[in-house]
Amino acid sequence: MRDIQSFVCGDWVGPDSSARGVLDAVDGTQIGVAGSLGFDRAAMVDYAKSVGGPALRAMTFHERAKMLKALALSLSEQKDALYEASYATGATLKDHMIDVDGGIGTMLVIASKGRREMPNAHVYVDGQVEQLSRSGQFVGQHICTPKLGVAVHINAFNFPVWGMLEKMAPALLAGMPVIVKPATATCQVTELAFQMIIASGLLPAGAVQLITGDLGNLLDHLGGQDVVSFTGSEATGRHLRTHPALIQNAVHFMAEQDSLNASVLGADVAVGSAEFDLFVKEVHREITVKAGQKCTAVRRVMVPDHLLDPVQTALIERLANTPIGNPRHPDTRMGALVSLSQRRDVLEKAAQIGAEAECVFGAGDMPVLVDADAEKGAFVTPRLFRCETPDQAQAVHDIEAFGPVSTLMGYRDAGHASQLLNRGQGSLVASVFTADAGFARDMVLGSAAYHGRLYFNNATSAKESTGHGSPMPHLVHGGPGRAGGGEELGGVRGVMSYMQRTAIQGTPDILSEITQRYVPNATPTPTPDHPFRRSYHQLTLGEQLITLEREITIEDIETFAHFTGDTFYAHMDAEAAKRNPFFPDRVAHGYLLLSFAAGLFVDPDEGPVLANTGLDELRFMKPVTAGEKIHVALTVMAKTPRTDTYGEVRWHVRILNQDEEIAAEYQLLTMNAFEHSDAL
Amino acid sequence: MRDIQSFVCGDWVGPDSSARGVLDAVDGTQIGVAGSLGFDRAAMVDYAKSVGGPALRAMTFHERAKMLKALALSLSEQKDALYEASYATGATLKDHMIDVDGGIGTMLVIASKGRREMPNAHVYVDGQVEQLSRSGQFVGQHICTPKLGVAVHINAFNFPVWGMLEKMAPALLAGMPVIVKPATATCQVTELAFQMIIASGLLPAGAVQLITGDLGNLLDHLGGQDVVSFTGSEATGRHLRTHPALIQNAVHFMAEQDSLNASVLGADVAVGSAEFDLFVKEVHREITVKAGQKCTAVRRVMVPDHLLDPVQTALIERLANTPIGNPRHPDTRMGALVSLSQRRDVLEKAAQIGAEAECVFGAGDMPVLVDADAEKGAFVTPRLFRCETPDQAQAVHDIEAFGPVSTLMGYRDAGHASQLLNRGQGSLVASVFTADAGFARDMVLGSAAYHGRLYFNNATSAKESTGHGSPMPHLVHGGPGRAGGGEELGGVRGVMSYMQRTAIQGTPDILSEITQRYVPNATPTPTPDHPFRRSYHQLTLGEQLITLEREITIEDIETFAHFTGDTFYAHMDAEAAKRNPFFPDRVAHGYLLLSFAAGLFVDPDEGPVLANTGLDELRFMKPVTAGEKIHVALTVMAKTPRTDTYGEVRWHVRILNQDEEIAAEYQLLTMNAFEHSDAL
Repeated sequence: MRDIQSFVCGDWVGPDSSARGVLDAVDGTQIGVAGSLGFDRAAMVDYAKSVGGPALRAMTFHERAKMLKALALSLSEQKDALYEASYATGATLKDHMIDVDGGIGTMLVIASKGRREMPNAHVYVDGQVEQLSRSGQFVGQHICTPKLGVAVHINAFNFPVWGMLEKMAPALLAGMPVIVKPATATCQVTELAFQMIIASGLLPAGAVQLITGDLGNLLDHLGGQDVVSFTGSEATGRHLRTHPALIQNAVHFMAEQDSLNASVLGADVAVGSAEFDLFVKEVHREITVKAGQKCTAVRRVMVPDHLLDPVQTALIERLANTPIGNPRHPDTRMGALVSLSQRRDVLEKAAQIGAEAECVFGAGDMPVLVDADAEKGAFVTPRLFRCETPDQAQAVHDIEAFGPVSTLMGYRDAGHASQLLNRGQGSLVASVFTADAGFARDMVLGSAAYHGRLYFNNATSAKESTGHGSPMPHLVHGGPGRAGGGEELGGVRGVMSYMQRTAIQGTPDILSEITQRYVPNATPTPTPDHPFRRSYHQLTLGEQLITLEREITIEDIETFAHFTGDTFYAHMDAEAAKRNPFFPDRVAHGYLLLSFAAGLFVDPDEGPVLANTGLDELRFMKPVTAGEKIHVALTVMAKTPRTDTYGEVRWHVRILNQDEEIAAEYQLLTMNAFEHSDAL
Repeated sequence: MRDIQSFVCGDWVGPDSSARGVLDAVDGTQIGVAGSLGFDRAAMVDYAKSVGGPALRAMTFHERAKMLKALALSLSEQKDALYEASYATGATLKDHMIDVDGGIGTMLVIASKGRREMPNAHVYVDGQVEQLSRSGQFVGQHICTPKLGVAVHINAFNFPVWGMLEKMAPALLAGMPVIVKPATATCQVTELAFQMIIASGLLPAGAVQLITGDLGNLLDHLGGQDVVSFTGSEATGRHLRTHPALIQNAVHFMAEQDSLNASVLGADVAVGSAEFDLFVKEVHREITVKAGQKCTAVRRVMVPDHLLDPVQTALIERLANTPIGNPRHPDTRMGALVSLSQRRDVLEKAAQIGAEAECVFGAGDMPVLVDADAEKGAFVTPRLFRCETPDQAQAVHDIEAFGPVSTLMGYRDAGHASQLLNRGQGSLVASVFTADAGFARDMVLGSAAYHGRLYFNNATSAKESTGHGSPMPHLVHGGPGRAGGGEELGGVRGVMSYMQRTAIQGTPDILSEITQRYVPNATPTPTPDHPFRRSYHQLTLGEQLITLEREITIEDIETFAHFTGDTFYAHMDAEAAKRNPFFPDRVAHGYLLLSFAAGLFVDPDEGPVLANTGLDELRFMKPVTAGEKIHVALTVMAKTPRTDTYGEVRWHVRILNQDEEIAAEYQLLTMNAFEHSDAL
């Protein structure tokens, strides 16, 4: 028995008389108490805004990303203690790994995305510069900056670690402080992970707080700069989203709710094929992992009508060979539900489904448990239903039993399968097992709008596929309609949920200063020395080299053509070139222009420039004919550190003709040493 | 007197006994009646979903964009009739142009964005392919597909045409049918524009419907695939967003609500400077245009403390010289409010502001009106308040009088100005007049999170700037908190509000088929002929040419270096190259590889390929040293029509070495004739 703490305004606070007991799912013993109404929720909001927010926003995206990476690695070293604490939730070691390793891995990917896809700055640039005027002295740009409030994360019981980390990582990366409210049933695991986070000393004061037990009146204190992200039941979600303070202030509210996710066996699949076996294996896994307590678990199993019997037989065989019991025992393949009340709820919902579908597995007596007591622990047998009339049925598409309960049903063709999928009124995920790309496309056109994620698997992808049930940090997680209408993760997309997008209008000079990116047509600064002789740290945004001129001769074009082998008619044949709608005469090769441009701006000697690594958004704007002269404007556009000794310099390059018309425009990437001493 | 109609399930329906009168704002006469509870709202939703939705979704994004362009041009030819009908709303010709020309222009820009930034296909691809596995046979991609419901647009009275078109264009481009519900006070103008839309015959049946008068129980019939977009008061917004059907089904709800927008004069600006004059002129315009009935109008005027007096003097001078009266009269500069009840509301709110700020203009008697009766028409004088204690004041930051009413207040420094801005608790727009980019950046860091748009203006941008009050179709329009938390427009961003984003996982083959874009590592098809000999229409996605090999010799590198002038040490000096962290020895120039690659894959003769127009996402992956051999895999990645005779082909290009390792990877753009006969 222990006191499960909250972490409030920088201090640990124990339970008070309002606390509730937390029970072991396997044997029903009480393992602790959690909850207190004795601390001030308004003060938590204020502490987050006045202490945590400013400290986080003082850091750049890269600094916060590095902090998250260090935090994830620190948690990773303490995984065993988290596994050990998790057995009391009823889950097996495999289940713990989904929760603990999955959460840590998610934080690592978000950190990596922050480093690779966001700037080392305070303002995130969203999309392209928008031209709003002819001469280009009034332009637009979308930016994102961290919301100046607090992110409140109300999490579900089933993933006490992943649930916290997958929401916390994007919020902290954005620069928003977080208040975590885990579900009480498993809050002792969240609290332990949270203790590790605080003990790491990696986060600034006020960045994170924890409320175990009752949320209290926290939401009353929220305003328009705050965010609420909820994972849990549809009923709770509905209650939260109508909270007066949230409505009054248009608080950004995200919800991931239970949904009637489905898995579809493709119309192309035959019994005995690789896809048939993959399907049966994955559906079985989705029914039994976490004893079916996953918001992404497969609740509806859809197969071509003629495969109903073989799929049913194969699934029953696997289910019958799934030992249930004490999750600590090595023979156990499925543990307990989280609580006895959860079991009552699952059995009640299963009975409602049973009113319109036949229970073809699991209706009988509880099998002998592995090292466990069926009375004290929250064990259930998996239940497979079969629905012969899915078009008429209602409960199988509407009622979610949040346990190892699924319904098998047949479909006629892709259109019918989509119709049945969409009867769920919005799901987090559906999976389709098919080797037929056309069937896959039909399912997308028929059903994508009802799903946050569509997962396709077949023999080609099987070895590398990540699983129907696993939200990936790279991809959005959420779904429309009954799935809650929310969206989280998805790389930088998830980070943007904690930022405000603002359209900025002004001169290129002002936009450059705001975004810390050179905007074309901003006033450049003449470089004090050749920029290739200046280190990464010496180079400044807007610093510009204007090169000497070079004339392009007909001999240059001939030489280049024969040397490279590119004798395209527009370069070689004046008459043919003139017949072409784009060219006035024989023109220089685009690659000749790029190459000559480099010849004009490259400084050859060893120095801070280490390599040309790439090029973006090259557009040829005006052809160059023999006798014309080109020169280059090379301008420092952006800088992004990549290691401890060098970083990427993005150069804006314009190739101009003798009349200052733009022949070509592009962004060049080089890797540059931080200091001269880091160079060769 | 006329019957203002609704357009219901393809038929015009007139008012019934529940109809309300619509009055002329200028003289109070009744011009018509609108409203009927006699038709079935559920049938409208069903008609949109079963008739309009499928017809729109059968079209591609480009087809819908072309339809919108044609529609906008058709409306443009009938502008005069719309102007004529608009005088009864109290607005002047200049005001009509903001509404009518602004709406048509917005539709044109959205159409153009659809052609240029979206594919000629049914699935919109959002962002990059996400690598989820080592060998690349399981990858992720976000896509957007149209929601399978109806978009309900509940619009404000102040822009009866713009309000309809700016919401309708993105929804139709996405592929969603629309039900328009204009505010009753000006619905006769919306109805006239809607008649023109129907008469044009350009939209498929069911694409648009109109409810004038009472909305009825329409919202009761909405579900998770539907969208509601609302513009209007905060009170109505709050009422709508708690509608049970919207909450129950997590319906995507967007709101643009009135907000306490502000304009800030920069701390750097002196009396008599260009920025000072621009500021006074623009603030005056924002107070008086549409008689201040704009959700973006300037309600708070913030100036450095020492400029309070000169700004007040300059504003009063302009306000005193603004003739008010009959909008049809050429001398009139400001017309009437929309109705007498609106005038009562404005005066009441102004009185509340007057309780904590001094009225320095407009408190006296109504001046002589131009050709109008002050009793019958909804005229008010502009009111300028001055607040000496903006930190202590509440009403000036909270109460919006939706008319020509604004409050002047002083600030100490950029930080203080941001604090005052943010007291509005979320605005659609703030403007800042400054020539100091540093001041601009301070305002962004202090205030961007509270604003949907920040508009900077100064002498450099003045000639091309688009105005504080004008939402641009390229940029998002909306704001957090009391501004409603919504977001619309912003180019393709606004279209995505009407689509579901779905994460797709599967093999590259399946993702290619779904997105109609070749995904790297998908199974290519050998080209039946050289692809440069095949027309745009003949080329198929995934069609691939593998070229012959070419050895790169040290002489090639030398020749290229001296020919182009690019003698960078990594190409010329073996010892220096080896000291560099990226290179094993002297390496070929990146541009040499590109040029030789073109030499390998270009077919020189006249044919369907018209030009190389650009290149994207070039990355050099592995250096190539002398003696190595390269070859190229050139694959058709995507096709986008650009005119009636040619289109852009995006090629995926890999330069491979003798060990099939990737030396460079990029996307090449060419313009290709549709048919051989369209070529030379």
